[in-house]
Amino acid sequence: MANWERKEIALRTTATGHVLTAPVFRCHGRSERPLAYIQANVHGGELQGNAAILALFDLLEKESPRGSIVLVPRVNPVSANQQVGDYVAGVYDFGSGQNFNRGYVNLTGPSRGSSACYVDVDAFAAVHRDATLSEIRDGFREALHGALGAVREGSGPWGIENRLEQSLAIQEMALDADVVLDLHTGDRAPRYLYAPAGATAATRAFGFPFVLEMPARFGGALDEATFAPWNDLSEAFRRLDRTDVRRFVDGFTVELGSMNAFSMAQGVEDARRIASALRYYGVLDGEPDEPPYRIVCCDVGDYRSIYAPAAGLVDQAISPGTPVRKGDLLARMVDPSRCTTMPPRSADAVIEVRAPEDGVVLLFHAFASIPKGARLLSMMTNVRQL
Amino acid sequence: MANWERKEIALRTTATGHVLTAPVFRCHGRSERPLAYIQANVHGGELQGNAAILALFDLLEKESPRGSIVLVPRVNPVSANQQVGDYVAGVYDFGSGQNFNRGYVNLTGPSRGSSACYVDVDAFAAVHRDATLSEIRDGFREALHGALGAVREGSGPWGIENRLEQSLAIQEMALDADVVLDLHTGDRAPRYLYAPAGATAATRAFGFPFVLEMPARFGGALDEATFAPWNDLSEAFRRLDRTDVRRFVDGFTVELGSMNAFSMAQGVEDARRIASALRYYGVLDGEPDEPPYRIVCCDVGDYRSIYAPAAGLVDQAISPGTPVRKGDLLARMVDPSRCTTMPPRSADAVIEVRAPEDGVVLLFHAFASIPKGARLLSMMTNVRQL
Amino acid sequence: MANWERKEIALRTTATGHVLTAPVFRCHGRSERPLAYIQANVHGGELQGNAAILALFDLLEKESPRGSIVLVPRVNPVSANQQVGDYVAGVYDFGSGQNFNRGYVNLTGPSRGSSACYVDVDAFAAVHRDATLSEIRDGFREALHGALGAVREGSGPWGIENRLEQSLAIQEMALDADVVLDLHTGDRAPRYLYAPAGATAATRAFGFPFVLEMPARFGGALDEATFAPWNDLSEAFRRLDRTDVRRFVDGFTVELGSMNAFSMAQGVEDARRIASALRYYGVLDGEPDEPPYRIVCCDVGDYRSIYAPAAGLVDQAISPGTPVRKGDLLARMVDPSRCTTMPPRSADAVIEVRAPEDGVVLLFHAFASIPKGARLLSMMTNVRQL
Amino acid sequence: MANWERKEIALRTTATGHVLTAPVFRCHGRSERPLAYIQANVHGGELQGNAAILALFDLLEKESPRGSIVLVPRVNPVSANQQVGDYVAGVYDFGSGQNFNRGYVNLTGPSRGSSACYVDVDAFAAVHRDATLSEIRDGFREALHGALGAVREGSGPWGIENRLEQSLAIQEMALDADVVLDLHTGDRAPRYLYAPAGATAATRAFGFPFVLEMPARFGGALDEATFAPWNDLSEAFRRLDRTDVRRFVDGFTVELGSMNAFSMAQGVEDARRIASALRYYGVLDGEPDEPPYRIVCCDVGDYRSIYAPAAGLVDQAISPGTPVRKGDLLARMVDPSRCTTMPPRSADAVIEVRAPEDGVVLLFHAFASIPKGARLLSMMTNVRQL
Repeated sequence: MANWERKEIALRTTATGHVLTAPVFRCHGRSERPLAYIQANVHGGELQGNAAILALFDLLEKESPRGSIVLVPRVNPVSANQQVGDYVAGVYDFGSGQNFNRGYVNLTGPSRGSSACYVDVDAFAAVHRDATLSEIRDGFREALHGALGAVREGSGPWGIENRLEQSLAIQEMALDADVVLDLHTGDRAPRYLYAPAGATAATRAFGFPFVLEMPARFGGALDEATFAPWNDLSEAFRRLDRTDVRRFVDGFTVELGSMNAFSMAQGVEDARRIASALRYYGVLDGEPDEPPYRIVCCDVGDYRSIYAPAAGLVDQAISPGTPVRKGDLLARMVDPSRCTTMPPRSADAVIEVRAPEDGVVLLFHAFASIPKGARLLSMMTNVRQL
Repeated sequence: MANWERKEIALRTTATGHVLTAPVFRCHGRSERPLAYIQANVHGGELQGNAAILALFDLLEKESPRGSIVLVPRVNPVSANQQVGDYVAGVYDFGSGQNFNRGYVNLTGPSRGSSACYVDVDAFAAVHRDATLSEIRDGFREALHGALGAVREGSGPWGIENRLEQSLAIQEMALDADVVLDLHTGDRAPRYLYAPAGATAATRAFGFPFVLEMPARFGGALDEATFAPWNDLSEAFRRLDRTDVRRFVDGFTVELGSMNAFSMAQGVEDARRIASALRYYGVLDGEPDEPPYRIVCCDVGDYRSIYAPAAGLVDQAISPGTPVRKGDLLARMVDPSRCTTMPPRSADAVIEVRAPEDGVVLLFHAFASIPKGARLLSMMTNVRQL
Repeated sequence: MANWERKEIALRTTATGHVLTAPVFRCHGRSERPLAYIQANVHGGELQGNAAILALFDLLEKESPRGSIVLVPRVNPVSANQQVGDYVAGVYDFGSGQNFNRGYVNLTGPSRGSSACYVDVDAFAAVHRDATLSEIRDGFREALHGALGAVREGSGPWGIENRLEQSLAIQEMALDADVVLDLHTGDRAPRYLYAPAGATAATRAFGFPFVLEMPARFGGALDEATFAPWNDLSEAFRRLDRTDVRRFVDGFTVELGSMNAFSMAQGVEDARRIASALRYYGVLDGEPDEPPYRIVCCDVGDYRSIYAPAAGLVDQAISPGTPVRKGDLLARMVDPSRCTTMPPRSADAVIEVRAPEDGVVLLFHAFASIPKGARLLSMMTNVRQL
Repeated sequence: MANWERKEIALRTTATGHVLTAPVFRCHGRSERPLAYIQANVHGGELQGNAAILALFDLLEKESPRGSIVLVPRVNPVSANQQVGDYVAGVYDFGSGQNFNRGYVNLTGPSRGSSACYVDVDAFAAVHRDATLSEIRDGFREALHGALGAVREGSGPWGIENRLEQSLAIQEMALDADVVLDLHTGDRAPRYLYAPAGATAATRAFGFPFVLEMPARFGGALDEATFAPWNDLSEAFRRLDRTDVRRFVDGFTVELGSMNAFSMAQGVEDARRIASALRYYGVLDGEPDEPPYRIVCCDVGDYRSIYAPAAGLVDQAISPGTPVRKGDLLARMVDPSRCTTMPPRSADAVIEVRAPEDGVVLLFHAFASIPKGARLLSMMTNVRQL
C-alpha cells in the first residue's frame, strides 16, 4: 500500500497576519519516480478539480502506484476567498490585478515575474554535450531549482512581492515532477485539455473530447512554465546535433467543465480519466484507456474569441461543445433599450452573433450580462481529429 | 391596438457625470386603469425578468389590453454594471452596502429610508369616513404621492442621497399602479412567488409551483412598499368599523428561476404566466389559467435558511424545488483539508447537511464554495397547498 | 503590577476553512471591576485605534489599574482583509452587504439581527422592584447574557449566520463591561466622540474637541447595543417609581481622526485621553484631565449630511473641524465635462457647495471623486458647548 | 486668441448599453504643430491632473499658443467609476484585471495587446534612406496610423476586446502629438516625472524635484508607447549610418503628488510647470523656467521597491520625498498580535524596515494596512543630479 504524507504550505499572509495555506498530500508509491504533480483550484471559482483529487484519494487506496504523486487541492486560498456578494471573483488577484495563472517564472529565459535568474540552455547543453540522459535530466532539474532559488533569494533586503512568492511556492513543488496537471475549469464549458504539441499519446490517454495544442512558448501559466524549459533544453541539444534529448517533462491544463460546478459523483469520472493519463506516464500501473470517441483538436492559435459586438444579455443559441458552420447562429445579444420604435418588439432588442468560421464553440463567458467588447465565447477553428 | 410611449428615467449619475438610465415602456390600453407596473432586474445578476418583459411586448402586440401597463426592463443599471471579474455582484450597492431591494420608503409609517414624511392612515380614515370607495382610493393615492414628494423635497439644501433618490424614482412609478410585479430570480431556484397574504386567487392565477405568503408588514422591499400602505388603510377603516375598504393594491415579487440564467424562449412561457395574472386583475381580457398542478405554499416566516455548519465546497444532494423529509441528505460540505488521517479518504472531507424538518428545499446559494455560516440553502417548512 | 492574559477569538471561518481571529488582551487590575472593554478597527480601514491600544499597553505597564480592562486591537480581520487594489474597503461586509457596526443584537427588544430573544425590562423591574442596586446590576447582566446565549443557540440545527456569529462574539465580551469604547475613525475628520446623552462628565473626561450626543435608542451599533438595555432598565424602574436605578453602563464610539491614518506617536496622545476617561470611570486611579478647550457638542439628530448636488471631483474649501456660517463656501464639485462653452474656463467646471446653516463641518467623504448624491460632508448644527 | 473645439470620445459601453465618454478639448494655436497631447486620470483614483488641465484652460485664455494642444481630463471613466465602498479602485480593470496603463500597443514590434500589426522600422528606414526629415516624420506617423488602424480592423468579424478598444481610442489621439504628457499621481508621493533618457533639457523644463529616467523600451504604458517607436526609427536609421534622424517625439508620465488628492489651487502651480515644458517644446512661446533647485534623478532600473517583510499596519518614519542613508529607519510594520509575551508591550508589535541602500524614498503604498509582501515603498537609488 502507498505511503502518504501531508503538510501545509503557506501561500500568503494577510494584512492581519493570518497565514493562508493549502494542504499538500504526497503519495509515495513503489518508487519515487515517475512523479506526478496535480493541483486544483488556482482560480478561486474553478472548483471541480478538488472533487477529482478527492476521488483520486479513494482510487489510490485501491491500487498502489508505481511512481509517486503530489496532490494539492484548494491550492489558492487567496483566490478562493476573494468573495464579493454571492460569487468568488477568482481569476485576478485583488491586490495586484494579476491573473493567478500568469505569474510563474520562466526558468530558461527572462520573464515578467523575474528577469534576473534563469538557466542558459545553450551553455548547459554545451557543458553536458556528452552526458548521459539521466545526468542531463538530473543536472537540468538541479539547475532549474538553482534558478528558482536565486529568484527567491535574489532580492535580499528588498524582499519579495507576495504574488511572486505565491507562484514560487507552487513552482518549487511542480518543478520536481515528470508530469504536471493543473486542474482548472472553463467559464461555461465541457471538459477539455490544453496539451503540449507533440504529446499526442498522452493527450489521448486523458480521453477528453476537446484538445487545444500549445506550442512550447512561455506565457506565464503553470503548464508552460513546466514544459517550456525542457523543450528549450531539447532544442539546445538539437542545435548541438544531439537529438536523443527529448522533452522530459510534460504539463497539462485540464479543464473540468464549468466554473462554479462541483460534484463528487462527477469527480469519480474525472479521476478515472486522470488515472488513465497517469498510467500512460507510468505513475500508475496498467494501460491507459482508449478514448471512447474521436477527439477534436486544434492549435491554441486557432482557438479564437468573439468579443461582444454590442452590450447586453446573452441568450445562448447553442451549448458549449457544439460544432458549428460558418454563419450559424451562436448567441443573441439582447438589450431592451434597443426597442426604440413603438410598439416595441422583442426582435428589436436582439443582435445576432453568427459563427465567423467553421469550428466548435467551446466556451461561453460565465455571466449572461456583458459589456460591449467582453469575450462572449471562444471557438476552435481549423479543427482536426487527434 | 394599444398605444405605446417610451421614455428614459435617470437612476444615478456616476462620479464622471454619466447618467445611468432605464427605459420605461408605457402601454395604454382601452382605459388607463387597472394599471399594472412591471419591472425587472433590480438585482443586477437576476436577468430573466427582462426576457419576460420582451415576450410581453410581443404578446401585447397580439392582444390589446383592457387596462394599462408600465414595463421597465433593466431597471437598475447601477447594479447591472457592478461587474467584478466574470460576475455581476448585483445585490448590494457598492457605494452604500444597501440591498437594492430594501431601500423603499414606508409611506404609512417611519422607515429607515426617510423617517419624516408619511401618511397617517387613521387621520386619513377619519376624514374620509363617509367618502365613496373611489374617493378613498384616489384621495389616498394622492396623499401617498404627497408623502413621497415630501421625502424628495424635504431635505432642501442638504440634498438627497443617491440610493434614496434611486428608490424614489422607482416608487413614484409603482405608486400609481393597481398591481406591481417585481421580477427577480432566486440564487439557484425554480420559479416561485412572494405573494401578499389573502391574495390567493391572484396568486393562483400566476400558476407558479411555489408560493411564499407575506404578512402586510413593511420591510423595505418594493412589494411590501406597494401593498403595506393600502393594507394599513384598510385596517384603519376597520378600526372605524368600516369594512368595505379592502386593500386596493397588490404587490408581488416574482422569482423567475436562477440568477444569471437568461433565455428568450423561456421568457415566452414566463410572460404567459404573468399575462394570466394580469387577466385576473383585469388589465388583460379573459380568464386566468387554472394552475396545472397543486401549488405548494408556506408563510414567509416558515421559509427558513440553513447556514453552512462548516466552510467548504457545496455538493448539492438534491435539486432546488425538491420536497424533503426531516433527516434527508440535502448537501455535502466538502473541504479536502479535513483529510488529516493518512491515507486520505474523500469521506473525511465531507460534512453532511440534513433537513432539520419536513419541507421543500427552494433555493441554494449561488456559489458552490462558501464560508462557514453563509446561507447554504433555504427551505419551505409547514407547507400547505394553495 | 497588573496581571495579563491573552487569547485569540475566532471571528469567521473562510471558504477554505481558515479561521480569522483577533487577539484579546485582558489586564486584571487590583479588582475585577469596574471593567472597561476597548476594541479597535471594526471597520477595516479605520486604523488609529490600534495605535491607541498599543500605547495603552505601555501606559498600563507604568500604572497598575484599579479595575480591569479588556483590549482587542484588530477586532475585525474579516473587514481588514477586504482589500481591493490599493485600499481596504472595510465598512460593508462583502458577503452580506451589512455595515460591520450595525449587526449587534438589541437585548431589550426585537432587532433586525435576531428578533426572538431579549429581556423584557418591565418584567425584570417588576420582579426586582425591591432588590438592591447590585442585585439589579448583576441580575440584569445575567439576564442579558441569557438572552445573548439564546440568540446563539436558538437556531438549533438551522445554524447561525456568520455575520451574526461575528457580532455575538464581540457583544459577549462587551456585555461584561461597565464602560465600552469602540475605537473608530471618521472618513476625513478630526477626533470626535459619539457619547450617550447624560454622560457629560465622562464625555468631558475624554477631552475630544467635538461630541455628538446620542439618545438611548438602539440602531445596531456597539455603543448603542451597550448602553440602550441599561437605559431601558432605568426607565422601566422609573415607570415603577423607583428612580435610583441609573443607567449603569456607558458606551462610546471614539473617532480617532481619519480613515487610513496610522501613527504610533499620535497613539500615545490618544491613549492619554482614553486613560483620562478610564480615570473618570474608576478603572484607573486619579482624576481625569480637564479639557484644554471648550468642547463643541450637538445632538446626533443635528449632525447632518450634505449629499453632493452634482457628480465630480471634490475640492475642499475648508478643513474638517472648521466652524462655518450659513452661506460659507464648503467645497467645490468639479467636473471638467461641464466646460461646454468655448474657450473652456475652469470656473465652468465648478459647482459650489455652501453651508445650509451655521455649524461645524466635521467630516468629508474619504475620496475626492464622488457620484451625485453621495455624502459629501457631515456637519454639526445647533452646536452648544459642553 | 486660440480657437477651441470640444468633442466627446467613447471609451466603453457598459452591460446596460450606457456609453462612458471623456471630453476632448482641442486648442488650435497659431499653427497646428508642434502638437501636445495631455491627458489626466487614466487611473481612476489619480485626480490632480484634472486640476492641472483646468488651470491650463485659464492659462491658455491669457496667452495664445504657438502650436496646438489636445487636453483630455477624466480620460478613463471606466476606472473612475470603479468605486467600492468609499474608494475608487482605479488601477486594475475589474473586467480584465489589466493595469489601465499597460494596454497600449507596441507599434514597432509585437506586443501583448496585439501581436499582428506593426511597422518594421528597418524596412521603413531602407525605403526612406534619402528622404528629408519632414518626409520621414510625416511618413512614419502615417505608417504608425496604418498599423494602429490595422490592429483595430484586423479582427474582422471576431470583434475587438473592450480593453484594447479603450487603449486604441487614446493611442490614436496621442499618436499625432509631438509631445505626450500623461498626468498621473503616485500612491503617497511628492511630484515627480518619468522621463525618457536623453531628454534632459525638456525634463529640466518641468522643474519637478524628482525624475526617473526610462530607457526606450516598450512596456505597455502610454509614455513608452509614444516615444519607443520613434526611438526605434532613429536607431534603424543609425544602423544605416544616417545619424540626423533623432527621436522626434517624447512622452512623459507626470506624477502630480498623491492619489486621491485634488486641489484647484495646487493645479495652478502644476499648470505653470507643465506650461514651462510646453515652452521648451515650442507649443507655447517663451523660455522654460529654470528649476529652482537641483533635480534628483535616477534610472528607472534603480528605482526599487521594498516589499513588506511582515503583515501589518504601516507607521511611516519619514515622508515620501526624503533622502535616506543605508540603515535609516523608513517605517514600522505594526501588528498587535505579535505581542505574545505578557505584559504586552508596543515594541513587541513592531518590525522595523530600514533602508537597504542610500537613496530617496519616493513613494509609500496608499493604504496603511498591508499584507506581507505588498509593496511598502519605492525608493530611488544611485541618484544623481540632473
